[in-house]
Amino acid sequence: MLKFFFSPQSCALASHIALEEAGADYEAVRVDFSKNEQRGAAYLKINPKGRVPALATDRGVLTETPAILFFIAQTHPAAKLAPLEDPFDLGRLQAFNAYLCSTVHVAHAHRMRGYRWADDPAAIDEMKRKVPQTVGDCFALIEAEMFEGPFVMGDAFTIADPYLFTLATWLEGDGVDPARFPKILAHRTRMAARPAVAKVWALHQ
Amino acid sequence: MLKFFFSPQSCALASHIALEEAGADYEAVRVDFSKNEQRGAAYLKINPKGRVPALATDRGVLTETPAILFFIAQTHPAAKLAPLEDPFDLGRLQAFNAYLCSTVHVAHAHRMRGYRWADDPAAIDEMKRKVPQTVGDCFALIEAEMFEGPFVMGDAFTIADPYLFTLATWLEGDGVDPARFPKILAHRTRMAARPAVAKVWALHQ
Repeated sequence: MLKFFFSPQSCALASHIALEEAGADYEAVRVDFSKNEQRGAAYLKINPKGRVPALATDRGVLTETPAILFFIAQTHPAAKLAPLEDPFDLGRLQAFNAYLCSTVHVAHAHRMRGYRWADDPAAIDEMKRKVPQTVGDCFALIEAEMFEGPFVMGDAFTIADPYLFTLATWLEGDGVDPARFPKILAHRTRMAARPAVAKVWALHQ
Repeated sequence: MLKFFFSPQSCALASHIALEEAGADYEAVRVDFSKNEQRGAAYLKINPKGRVPALATDRGVLTETPAILFFIAQTHPAAKLAPLEDPFDLGRLQAFNAYLCSTVHVAHAHRMRGYRWADDPAAIDEMKRKVPQTVGDCFALIEAEMFEGPFVMGDAFTIADPYLFTLATWLEGDGVDPARFPKILAHRTRMAARPAVAKVWALHQ
């Protein structure tokens, strides 16, 4: 059985929703960041990066949201969470998720985790100050150029949807008014109403 | 025919090498960053993000290195650039590439492109100061925990190899001594000797 390691209010929410939408057989294990468990010896054996999410399979552990999402889609083909046999559509989907992980999540991370890239408290404050602008710019680009509707890639629900939903729930905290992005806001509302999303969301509070 | 948009000294090198290793039928188009072409109206129509790489196909444009690499592997199966039918091995490969794009490349970007995340010149200088540490930590983790050898994923050359090679060529510029990572350094030397890599490398100087 799959074992899924997560912590609340992290991007692990995306993979957790995908597991639930896929009807996967898995056990969810909460990593307690308030006790710094992610840096403890036991967890570092599972994921040497000391981060969540991590997905333990019978062959070993997978990390990184885009990879875990893709693994869930590929191993649960009946759920049709990705256009696996269409290289162009799959490429667009993977490009979307790569943008979320390398640009949008990174822009957000400068609010709470600026210490990753600077030590001086003044520099960390300065990074935090710019987050509403950088995160807002990312979502403006998604709204204008990338989001197809009603789901991210168009008519079909895919692994891009729980990932966008997860990052969109951080907008208010990042100082960005979601009303600027009507399509993304409507998507967030629709996603929250899905039974799989509601079930997982409750575990992440 | 595929049309590949690149600029020298960028991460586009990785996809360019993969196209060459795959024996793809493509045309390479240089985007001149010194003339700010990546922000010009013509290029923004191709890639609204104003970045490279971008791969124009007969169905539309793909962006983001991990997605382009995967597309090349999937559309050129004879080149065997990814374990497409093995979800776990493919998951490990995708996790490696996701780590490069979301963590390693981002750590590097704080040296030359700190303005993305802060406006104050003092904060930008402070980010630059920490780059040798953050990039060094990333490569230490790759050397200790991720790199299998002789190629990234083990015996087979995959789309992870040109991507690691690309980022490893930035080490000296980032103030990191590559001698700290003997496996990665030997990989870089072996990669540079491959005919496809040497051919593309010359175009990126």
